[in-house]
Amino acid sequence: MSAGSAGKLIGVGVGPGDPELITLKAIRALAEADVVAHFAKAGNSSHARAIAAQHLRPQVIELPLAYPVTTELPKCSSGYRDALRDFYDEAAATIAAYLEAGRIVAVISEGDPLFYGSYMHLHTRLAPRFPVEIVAGVTGMSGCWSAAGTPIAQGDDIFTVLPATLPEDELTRRFSETNAAVVMKVGRHLPKVRRALKASGRLRRAIYVERGTMSDAKLVPLAAKPDDDAPYFAIVLVPGWEERP
Amino acid sequence: MSAGSAGKLIGVGVGPGDPELITLKAIRALAEADVVAHFAKAGNSSHARAIAAQHLRPQVIELPLAYPVTTELPKCSSGYRDALRDFYDEAAATIAAYLEAGRIVAVISEGDPLFYGSYMHLHTRLAPRFPVEIVAGVTGMSGCWSAAGTPIAQGDDIFTVLPATLPEDELTRRFSETNAAVVMKVGRHLPKVRRALKASGRLRRAIYVERGTMSDAKLVPLAAKPDDDAPYFAIVLVPGWEERP
Repeated sequence: MSAGSAGKLIGVGVGPGDPELITLKAIRALAEADVVAHFAKAGNSSHARAIAAQHLRPQVIELPLAYPVTTELPKCSSGYRDALRDFYDEAAATIAAYLEAGRIVAVISEGDPLFYGSYMHLHTRLAPRFPVEIVAGVTGMSGCWSAAGTPIAQGDDIFTVLPATLPEDELTRRFSETNAAVVMKVGRHLPKVRRALKASGRLRRAIYVERGTMSDAKLVPLAAKPDDDAPYFAIVLVPGWEERP
Repeated sequence: MSAGSAGKLIGVGVGPGDPELITLKAIRALAEADVVAHFAKAGNSSHARAIAAQHLRPQVIELPLAYPVTTELPKCSSGYRDALRDFYDEAAATIAAYLEAGRIVAVISEGDPLFYGSYMHLHTRLAPRFPVEIVAGVTGMSGCWSAAGTPIAQGDDIFTVLPATLPEDELTRRFSETNAAVVMKVGRHLPKVRRALKASGRLRRAIYVERGTMSDAKLVPLAAKPDDDAPYFAIVLVPGWEERP
């Protein structure tokens, strides 16, 4: 508990999904937090909260942050951006009120808070005004290659994270110029990703992963996957490290 | 303890350095291991062991794996490669004997075992013959950007890990073509990395990091670092995410 002086914001990574892949530091942060905030899609429960559930104090104040429903807005539109900006502004203002009252606020994130996480939108708004601590977490991609048991990069390998939204020729070129890669947000882009991997000679070693660190994980060599069905959060691993002493 | 049936190899990531950034899963693996193996330079103690020390069972068998002294051999020489190959072959054979005797062997790694870790050399030799489990860990780079409090990548950002050994024009091109980057093994390459960041317009946001998750960490904007002194394991963070809703 804290009161009186300035509060503290803690960005807490809770790991990729397996509740055992949470760190001692995250557990300690949850034990000292007065408020625990978590993002979720409107109408859904937070994955990060599910991972961390057993470590929340019974008396803790929970602050669910539900993303605005923006399905009717194209992702690149200014309407979409404005809706998200307003949402993050409001969430930051709510948290700022707790911090001004001297509270410790933990914002929990799947994976690592500063690596493709929504927490970053609160961080940039609040870090200039309040004490902030970051608790690094195991990333989703580490969870995936660990579940696959696949060494991903070694020595002087170049490693690249690529969004599946890139154009096909751009993906092909980048696969050709990196030793190891992870393709994120595969979804409906899977046929294109598959063609780009084939054109760059990398299809043979690629691994398709769904729900990598969940008990119902699906891991399969991409070349052996018979269909092109893929959820938005599926990823493809392209292991590097061809040259092994 | 285990005996009788087949043993198990566990590749255990213990995180980037802060002993609190170890996961519950790593702690459980160390509690069930009959043997704990760790790599170190000849004459040095293992960083991974220091991180995990308080979780080792008093009765556990420790297996220190000391890298061969290869300072007299050029890194690209066949002599160097042969020395390393023999070393990994011998280490794998020693561990295989424990596994054949039904023991559980945990090999501990700083960071994540399958991301630029020495464990991978044992994994490729032993995974075809024995049951293997991987415990993902917080990577060194996550520890560094968390210590710096710097969001690294967001949304559709491309993220690239680059070895500082790349030629200057290659580094410059790759900095220009990625949103976010981490440069590894900076050491004596710092002047070149600095020039490549300047030429690609990325020097302004770059952060130099030494011992990122240690209590004596040194984090400084690279543009403000007055000298070019850098140890081998120093890294440079190049944050992406220029466009923020």
